[in-house]
Amino acid sequence: MIPPAFLHKGLLNVRIVMKFGGTSVAGLDRIRNAAQRVKAEVDAGNQVAVVVSAMAGVTNQLVGWCQELSPMFDAREYDAVVATGEQVTAGLTAIALQTLGVDARSWQGWQVAVETDGQHSKARIQGIDGEELLSRMAQGQVPVMAGFQGIGPDNRITTLGRGGSDTSAVALAAALKAERCDIYTDVDGVYTTDPRIVPGARKLNKITYEEMLELASVGAKVLQTRSVELAMKERVRVQVLSSFQDLPGTMVVDEEEIVEQEIVAGIAYSRDEAKITVRRVPDRPGIAAAIFGPLSDAHINVDMIVQNVSADGTTDMTFTVGKTDFLRAQAVLEEAKKEIGYAEITADQDVSKISVVGVGMRSHAGVAGTMFKTLADEGINIQVISTSEIKVSVLVAAKYTELAVRALHTAYRLDA
Amino acid sequence: MIPPAFLHKGLLNVRIVMKFGGTSVAGLDRIRNAAQRVKAEVDAGNQVAVVVSAMAGVTNQLVGWCQELSPMFDAREYDAVVATGEQVTAGLTAIALQTLGVDARSWQGWQVAVETDGQHSKARIQGIDGEELLSRMAQGQVPVMAGFQGIGPDNRITTLGRGGSDTSAVALAAALKAERCDIYTDVDGVYTTDPRIVPGARKLNKITYEEMLELASVGAKVLQTRSVELAMKERVRVQVLSSFQDLPGTMVVDEEEIVEQEIVAGIAYSRDEAKITVRRVPDRPGIAAAIFGPLSDAHINVDMIVQNVSADGTTDMTFTVGKTDFLRAQAVLEEAKKEIGYAEITADQDVSKISVVGVGMRSHAGVAGTMFKTLADEGINIQVISTSEIKVSVLVAAKYTELAVRALHTAYRLDA
Repeated sequence: MIPPAFLHKGLLNVRIVMKFGGTSVAGLDRIRNAAQRVKAEVDAGNQVAVVVSAMAGVTNQLVGWCQELSPMFDAREYDAVVATGEQVTAGLTAIALQTLGVDARSWQGWQVAVETDGQHSKARIQGIDGEELLSRMAQGQVPVMAGFQGIGPDNRITTLGRGGSDTSAVALAAALKAERCDIYTDVDGVYTTDPRIVPGARKLNKITYEEMLELASVGAKVLQTRSVELAMKERVRVQVLSSFQDLPGTMVVDEEEIVEQEIVAGIAYSRDEAKITVRRVPDRPGIAAAIFGPLSDAHINVDMIVQNVSADGTTDMTFTVGKTDFLRAQAVLEEAKKEIGYAEITADQDVSKISVVGVGMRSHAGVAGTMFKTLADEGINIQVISTSEIKVSVLVAAKYTELAVRALHTAYRLDA
Repeated sequence: MIPPAFLHKGLLNVRIVMKFGGTSVAGLDRIRNAAQRVKAEVDAGNQVAVVVSAMAGVTNQLVGWCQELSPMFDAREYDAVVATGEQVTAGLTAIALQTLGVDARSWQGWQVAVETDGQHSKARIQGIDGEELLSRMAQGQVPVMAGFQGIGPDNRITTLGRGGSDTSAVALAAALKAERCDIYTDVDGVYTTDPRIVPGARKLNKITYEEMLELASVGAKVLQTRSVELAMKERVRVQVLSSFQDLPGTMVVDEEEIVEQEIVAGIAYSRDEAKITVRRVPDRPGIAAAIFGPLSDAHINVDMIVQNVSADGTTDMTFTVGKTDFLRAQAVLEEAKKEIGYAEITADQDVSKISVVGVGMRSHAGVAGTMFKTLADEGINIQVISTSEIKVSVLVAAKYTELAVRALHTAYRLDA
């Protein structure tokens, strides 16, 4: 007799990685729920590996303890402390799976091993040895790997930085050559824009890696940027879906997989940036380096940059920085005033960046034009413009954020 | 110039293990306090290794989660989950030490490695590789080892059973050939009896391993029995002392170390036992085996046993079992009634075991006689008597517990 699972022809040997985020394992009932979802995939004849985050809130508490003991804590000890959150969830999830009759066992980062560099508290995965896991999966066992953690060259626990469990899952999927990596979270997918602003926002069935990266400001709470970069590099198909609803999610895939490519995939916005203008700088070669060199030295990321047309030998330079760097950026420029030789600095935190994202832009003209016309029709002034191959971003007064997003969502025919 | 630490002649190269229990690390302030005590020993020129328990309450929560998911949880997963408690404390303690300027690092059981057998959730230590720790200690670093945990032959985390951190500390002290193992707890030592019953109970400066083991019922919350057995076997000098008071504690040492040996070290009592009498069993060879065989098969520990003088071919057999096994023991005997052939079972939970403990008994006669006379003078009836080389125990009605302990404490001149 051939056992039933073998009858799922075509599904046999399909490997998936299922990753459950903090809200999906926040408490024993949710862990049981996650275990049920794993069992369903196992029952469907799939080979499944699971990656889990810490229970929601746990990591914050552990981090808080380290910070309270010392703001300058030893990152190696921090790693040993905070990695326990995922260790607990992995063990509990394995028990929950066993209770459902699923053969399962937990794996810590050092057991797998998930090898990382030695950058404690923000380590990068260098390799995952998937052999042992693959051989156990082939025998029907479900490995439950603690996310967010690995082991460094010093034989000590490392962690990958906040949100790192997404990266763990994608890296494991790559190591296991999995068919896809399902990221279970508290939203049911990636939307054309923030549904809180546009109730008619549509869930996307598919999105390209590049678009997902550009939509980070919408998707920040959906997928960690590094995990998307890794998925793109390793060509891992990632699905974002809800652990609380029985619905397909959004597949993040290679561009070739999307046959009917929309020109615009979504509208993103960010209120996290602030605008700084350096007025009346001498319009000479090297002036940009004089301004942005000191900012770079201070590890301040500059996003949008626009240089005005020169008048009487001077020009204005406008750019945006993250709001958390806003005061520090001004201080750096004050200090470099003599070297740069500007007249004054003006600054504005009350701005919002609106972005239109879509790989279709590469082959379709007029996307930027539609954006500018739509905003003009609404009487919204554009302060700064920047573009990439698949994105057009504009800076507008923050009060226009919702209006701009709604108008653009309609203009690009994204409404449901 | 010779650095100051090298001037502590005689103290140089004195190694100590300092173990902090759950109440001594319950919260960041207490962890800081523990770190101060470690720093004091380091400043005195000692080489120090630290062993920590989980913060009070943490282990119970972790155990509770496992049990709630499955009463029959996989002990390997349980171990992965509960071992995180000590991992967190070890990391936080290392940070607290660093904040005080002490070079410190945490060590998980698998990093040291603390090698154990594969008996998950109740593993026994088989060996500790102390080389790496010794070399770092010689350079002034303080290793902070997570107690209670080790690694099994399956390369998975094992735990040693409740209270196992004491055993971790003693085993580490043995591996490091430490001068002594200081167990910091919430009491300041071992007393001649329970100070709640006898306010004049004295703290013992020294006690022998054998006495400490026999005083377990008094000392149960002071030292885990297995840790004392291990200390005795490995000849590790153990000190029990308070992490909240600056006082010397009680040294648990080899008999030869105690010059002025008291005849009686202390009076212990236990209300955890119950008495069962099997009446009118045939007085024939093999009857004891017929009664205690089934109890043993049911993993029920029998403590005191007394057999009455035979009359008309039958006898009564009285013994004690732990109260938790009381009902089960009676059920086992009911089931074996035909094989044993007794008339009836009588049982009494309202009893207390009073013990007089002291290695001096070996060389001094009259200790038991003093006990019996003292209790008789107080009108306390003795129900069962049992003796070992260094202990005399009697079973009395529970209501006499305090009276008996106080009278004996005075009779053996133990009052302060």
